[in-house]
Amino acid sequence: MGRIVVVGSGFSGGILARKIAEELDRPVTVIEKRRHIGGNMYDEYDEHGILIHRYGPHFLNTDDWSVMEFLQQFTALVPRCAKFYSVIDGKYVRLPYNFETVQQLIGPEKAAGLLPKLRKSFPGGGRVPVSALVEHPDEDIRNYGVLLFEKAYRTYTSKMWGLQPEQIDRSVLDRVPMAMNYDERYLNKDFQFLPEKGYTELFKNMLAHPNITVRLGDDALRHIGFSGGEAVYDGEPVECLIYTGPIDELFGCRYGRLPYRSLDIRYEYFDRESMQPSMMVSYPQAAGYTRTTEYRKVMPDDSGVSGTVIATEYPVAYDPESGTGMQPYYPVITEDSGRLYKKYEDLAKRYENLFLCGRLADYKYYNMDACILHTLERFGVVKAYLEGKKR
Amino acid sequence: MGRIVVVGSGFSGGILARKIAEELDRPVTVIEKRRHIGGNMYDEYDEHGILIHRYGPHFLNTDDWSVMEFLQQFTALVPRCAKFYSVIDGKYVRLPYNFETVQQLIGPEKAAGLLPKLRKSFPGGGRVPVSALVEHPDEDIRNYGVLLFEKAYRTYTSKMWGLQPEQIDRSVLDRVPMAMNYDERYLNKDFQFLPEKGYTELFKNMLAHPNITVRLGDDALRHIGFSGGEAVYDGEPVECLIYTGPIDELFGCRYGRLPYRSLDIRYEYFDRESMQPSMMVSYPQAAGYTRTTEYRKVMPDDSGVSGTVIATEYPVAYDPESGTGMQPYYPVITEDSGRLYKKYEDLAKRYENLFLCGRLADYKYYNMDACILHTLERFGVVKAYLEGKKR
Repeated sequence: MGRIVVVGSGFSGGILARKIAEELDRPVTVIEKRRHIGGNMYDEYDEHGILIHRYGPHFLNTDDWSVMEFLQQFTALVPRCAKFYSVIDGKYVRLPYNFETVQQLIGPEKAAGLLPKLRKSFPGGGRVPVSALVEHPDEDIRNYGVLLFEKAYRTYTSKMWGLQPEQIDRSVLDRVPMAMNYDERYLNKDFQFLPEKGYTELFKNMLAHPNITVRLGDDALRHIGFSGGEAVYDGEPVECLIYTGPIDELFGCRYGRLPYRSLDIRYEYFDRESMQPSMMVSYPQAAGYTRTTEYRKVMPDDSGVSGTVIATEYPVAYDPESGTGMQPYYPVITEDSGRLYKKYEDLAKRYENLFLCGRLADYKYYNMDACILHTLERFGVVKAYLEGKKR
Repeated sequence: MGRIVVVGSGFSGGILARKIAEELDRPVTVIEKRRHIGGNMYDEYDEHGILIHRYGPHFLNTDDWSVMEFLQQFTALVPRCAKFYSVIDGKYVRLPYNFETVQQLIGPEKAAGLLPKLRKSFPGGGRVPVSALVEHPDEDIRNYGVLLFEKAYRTYTSKMWGLQPEQIDRSVLDRVPMAMNYDERYLNKDFQFLPEKGYTELFKNMLAHPNITVRLGDDALRHIGFSGGEAVYDGEPVECLIYTGPIDELFGCRYGRLPYRSLDIRYEYFDRESMQPSMMVSYPQAAGYTRTTEYRKVMPDDSGVSGTVIATEYPVAYDPESGTGMQPYYPVITEDSGRLYKKYEDLAKRYENLFLCGRLADYKYYNMDACILHTLERFGVVKAYLEGKKR
C-alpha cells in the first residue's frame, strides 16, 4: 500500500483525510499551503476578543440535517441565522429582497397594488430568481423586477464578479432570489448553525486523528508531478493524491488561467457596542465594496467583548502574485471559463490515482453544505478505489 | 336638527365624530369619561422621554391599505413591525410560533422529521390555529400541537382570560396561530405602522375640527336616559346618540354584568440601553403576568433617550370599582357572555336614535384595523339615518 496525500485542509480535504484515516484506517498526509488549517473557513480571535472569519463570513445553512449531524462529531453547533440588510438609495432595506423590501422600495401605497399580483403569480411564498420578475408578462411585476435588477443586482454583480450580469452564468445570479413572503432569513434553509467555538476549532478536531499528519506552509504544487499515467509526489509514486486547490494550477495553467474571484477584506475597529443593524450589510451601489460584516453580531457568545469590528469586502481578481487577491474564493463561471475548465477536467481524468474535490478543483460554486455532502459522496469513490487496489 | 352626542373618544367615537363634523358639517359633542382622549390607544412621554402606550402596546396592522390611508390624514405613519419572543421553559423562543420555534422546542434533529410533514399538511406557509395541530391525524404533528398547547396556550389563556381554554370562544384562541414558515412578524399583515408622533397626537388631530367639542372627565352614563322609545341626554331629546362604552353599563347592567378583561400594567425603569431581545416578550408560564413591553424598542425615534422602561401586564377582571382593573380592554367571549350580550343588543335596538360602535359596545374583539373599517361602515348607517331625518 502506497502513500495517501491530501492537498488542502478546507472541508473537502479535511473531511476526506478524516474519513480515510478513521474508516479505512490508513495514514494520510495533509499538505496545506497556508500557515493554518481550515481553508477559507479559518477564523481566529482578534486583539479585541472578537472571533473573525478571516476569509469572509461563513454560515452553515442546509435543509439536510445529516450535514449538521456529521459536523457535530467535531464541534458543538449553535443556531445562528444569517441576517442582512441592503443599503439602496441610502436606506436600509430588507435582504433577502422580500415583501417588506417591496414596500421600502416603491412605498406601501404602490405595494398595496403589487403584493396581491406577486402572491397570485408566485403562490406558496417561495424564492424566485429576479429574472422571473424581469421577464414576467404582468407590467407591474416586470417594472418592479427591472427596478430591483438595476438598483441591486446589476451594480452588485459587476462589482462582485468584475463582469456584467449578462456575462455571468445564470446560476450565479439566481443565488440571491427574491422571497415571495416576509421571510427575513438571508437563506431559506431549515438548519442554520455556527460551530460554537469557531471553524478553526472544528477543523482542529476533525484533523486530530493519529493517522493524520498535517504539514502547514508547504506548497504541494512544488512536489506534485505526473509520470507514467499517474500523479507522483516528489517523484515517488503515491497510491492516491487528493487535490482540492485550483485545478488549473495543478497543471501549471497550461491551457491558460481559470478565473477565480478573491476578496480584499479591510477591518476597522470602533469603540461602540453596535455599528450596523444586522450582522451583514450589502451595498450594491457603493463604490468598490460589496458587503460589511460586524463579527461581534455573528459570534455565538460576545459576552466580555467591548467595541466592535466592521470587515469590508472589496472583490478583486484572484492573482497569486498580487498583494490583495492572493487566495482564490469563487470560480467565475461563464461560458468561456466553463469550456476551459472542461479541458482541465479531461486532463485530470487521465490520472487514475488523482482525485479532485471542492469549490476550487471542481470549479463549482458549492455552498458549504453542498461541499460537505459532495465530499462525503466523493469519499465513497475514493474508498472503492483504495479497496479495489487492495484486492 | 337636534343634538349629536358621541360617547367615547377612541377609534370608534373619534372617527364617527370627525366624519359627522366634516362630511355632514354637523356639530358634535364628544363625551369622554377619562381625562384624556384616544381611549386605550392613549400614549404619553414618561419622565425619561420614552413614549408609553398607557393601556398596553398598540400596533397598527392591516392588509387593507385604505385603513392607513385614512389615518394618514391625521398623522404621519412610520413602518414598525411588532416583534415578539416567548419565554418557554426558561428560553427565548420565536413568537409567532413558527418553524424556528419547532426547532427550539423539540430540537433540530426531531424537527428534521417534523418540518416536512408540516409543509405537506399545511402547504403555502400560512398561519394555522393550534387546534388544527392538536386534532391532526398524523401523530407527530398532533404531539407537537399538544406540546405547544400545554406549554404555551393553556397557561397563557388561563392567565389572560381567567378561564380554561375550553371555556373561551374558539375565535379568541385562534388569534395566535402558528406560522407554517419562518415568518418572524407577530402578525401576518402587509402594512404595519405606528403614528410617528404617537396615538394621542393622532387623536388630537382627528378631533381638531371646528364642529367638534370634546368634554373630558365627564361620565356620559350620568346623563343618558331612555324615554318614549328614544335615548335622551340630560332628559332632553337628542337627534343621535353614539355610544362606544360597555353595552351593559349603558343599561345599568340590568341583566347582569358582561365580563370584560382588564390589565394592571406595572412599569420599571432600568438605566440600560436594552433589557430584552424584542419589543415584546410573552411569558405563558410566568405567574401572574403575560407580557412585557420595552417601549424604547417600540418608539419610532428613540434618539436622545437613555435608559429603558419595561411594562409588565397582569391581566385582571374589569371592575370599575377596583383599584387595578378600572378600564375595560377585552370582551370575554364565551357562550354565556354571548347570550347575555344578545339581550343587551336586543334592548339597544329598541332605540332608533341610539348607535353602538366599537369593541366594548359591540362586544367584539376587534383589532384596530377592523375597528376602523367597521366604524367607517357604521358611519354610513349613521349618515343615512341623519340624512333621512333631514328629509
